[in-house]
Amino acid sequence: MAADHPEHSTAGTYTVKGKEFTRDTRYITTRVTRDGRDGFPVEAGRYRLVAARACPWANRTIIVRRLLGLEDAISLGLPGPTHDERSWTFDLDPDGKDPVLGIDRLQDAYLRRDPEYSRGITVPALVDVTTGAVVTNDYAQITLDLSTEWVDHHREGAPDLYPEHLRAEIDEVNAVVFRDVNNGVYRCGFAGSQEAYERAYHRLFDALDLLEERLTTQRYLVGDTITEADVRLFTTLVRFDAVYHGHFKCNRTKLTEMPALWGYARDLFQTPGFGDTIDFAQIKQHYYVVHTDINPTQVVPVGPDLSGWVTPHGREELGGRPFGDGTAPGPVRDDERVDAAHTPLR
Amino acid sequence: MAADHPEHSTAGTYTVKGKEFTRDTRYITTRVTRDGRDGFPVEAGRYRLVAARACPWANRTIIVRRLLGLEDAISLGLPGPTHDERSWTFDLDPDGKDPVLGIDRLQDAYLRRDPEYSRGITVPALVDVTTGAVVTNDYAQITLDLSTEWVDHHREGAPDLYPEHLRAEIDEVNAVVFRDVNNGVYRCGFAGSQEAYERAYHRLFDALDLLEERLTTQRYLVGDTITEADVRLFTTLVRFDAVYHGHFKCNRTKLTEMPALWGYARDLFQTPGFGDTIDFAQIKQHYYVVHTDINPTQVVPVGPDLSGWVTPHGREELGGRPFGDGTAPGPVRDDERVDAAHTPLR
Repeated sequence: MAADHPEHSTAGTYTVKGKEFTRDTRYITTRVTRDGRDGFPVEAGRYRLVAARACPWANRTIIVRRLLGLEDAISLGLPGPTHDERSWTFDLDPDGKDPVLGIDRLQDAYLRRDPEYSRGITVPALVDVTTGAVVTNDYAQITLDLSTEWVDHHREGAPDLYPEHLRAEIDEVNAVVFRDVNNGVYRCGFAGSQEAYERAYHRLFDALDLLEERLTTQRYLVGDTITEADVRLFTTLVRFDAVYHGHFKCNRTKLTEMPALWGYARDLFQTPGFGDTIDFAQIKQHYYVVHTDINPTQVVPVGPDLSGWVTPHGREELGGRPFGDGTAPGPVRDDERVDAAHTPLR
Repeated sequence: MAADHPEHSTAGTYTVKGKEFTRDTRYITTRVTRDGRDGFPVEAGRYRLVAARACPWANRTIIVRRLLGLEDAISLGLPGPTHDERSWTFDLDPDGKDPVLGIDRLQDAYLRRDPEYSRGITVPALVDVTTGAVVTNDYAQITLDLSTEWVDHHREGAPDLYPEHLRAEIDEVNAVVFRDVNNGVYRCGFAGSQEAYERAYHRLFDALDLLEERLTTQRYLVGDTITEADVRLFTTLVRFDAVYHGHFKCNRTKLTEMPALWGYARDLFQTPGFGDTIDFAQIKQHYYVVHTDINPTQVVPVGPDLSGWVTPHGREELGGRPFGDGTAPGPVRDDERVDAAHTPLR
């Protein structure tokens, strides 16, 4: 089954010789909605978000949950950065068990949903704590639903990350960013042939060049406030120099060599809700240790120097209102703070 | 024998789990001298230098031969960038045979020297064309001997790369550069444990920081002209971003992020005899294809963008006389020109 869902949960095998990398996009698409039409109504305290800090797809949900102030409504489970062939584990928790779900590997929650479940054991996963079963792992829908279905539980001053009048544009940007950037870096790194790699590389940097141009004159991707589109681009950019540049051979230039994108990424990093979710040590551990077929020694690079992330970015000059009519989120909860030694921000 | 000479000639195995990388330094130390005391007197036309463009140790000899104008006295054989478990091959030559030695793999010249030869089949190697046997592969001595023993065959205006009054200082700089930089990058890349890697990484960047400081106020490493010390540092720096940064995890910063070193490297690159010996395509091919234990997919990165190598460096302001009382070498011989598509200079 390795070739079917190469990103997650398999025994270190992510590249298939001679083949392009193809992401398995068959997710569990059940939704948690206000009307509960799939059987899972919005309800504070009922769901647990399982989201490893290392993973860019999971990172989106951690950022959005925090920007919207959903910490009290949806609890957060954090698997460690590495996983074995049987999936993500709660190895950072006391006794290696998630304190709410009581399981030591995320796979158990998937099997509770479907004892025959054979696809990727992926994060993020939204788990129903009343049954211990995964409700959905459809990451793209999860963040949109946090914005649009969980409105009654948003904090005061929560930004509108998916404003109705901008949805068409956000969706359009997201589609390109997903194909050529978010997933594009994986298509570089997991290419099974020189040709597949080069195709992905050129698409990636062509897309980044267009984004560089767009972000030279505007502070955020769509409109003049932070939206879902920024969250999705950010989680790839923040990993770019730390892992994609070397490990995935996305090496035309570093992020730090693309002035607008680098300023944009730093601007977001320094915005509450973004940088405070980032654990560079876990990010590097994850990629370099888990992908044994492209890094058999599992040696984790010491670099890059990350101190640039907290330097002035000057993006305020472009205008923009980060949270629109809303406000920045407050401090991170004590029990969800990133280890200070793992990131240059604190 | 893999662990004994892991850099060269083995079947893709360069790292030894749990171990530091240790370079086999048991070379064939026979010397070609004016007095012929080892049986091999200096003699125009008698020796052939076999030196793959990909290899930094071989690159030194190609540069020195050209700076000194020894092209007519010592011919040049060029194996291709990759090699199989049985050593470097002449796969770029017509019929896959070196046109002078008539052999298809360098190993044959080593076996002609010693039928029981079991150590590394390395470049550079100086071969006696009258017997087809390797005289020496002691790369550190080869360049010094080109400077000091081959004086009668130097071109008019050849620089003194190893001036007597500076030898102690050159030797001292070379020792540190070898240990922490030239060989230091290999100790990062071929480390068999996280600890060994981190030790090598910190030594490398500590050394580069010292060199950065030294080169901030002086144009060349020793004295005010180009010496052997510059040749030795250059061949590592020119490969830094193209291979060592990503492939060997020397990733605190790129060379382009260390201003004095980057200016220094560009200055030399743009000096006749340096950049015109560099084939970036062969360099990348070599490292990424040959070291299958650290790059099993053998995918060769498209990056980095190399166009910066020909940008102004401003180092003239520091003074210095590149060739001292001598002159720059003339144009590269037609039959030794690097493929224009392989480098950004031409």
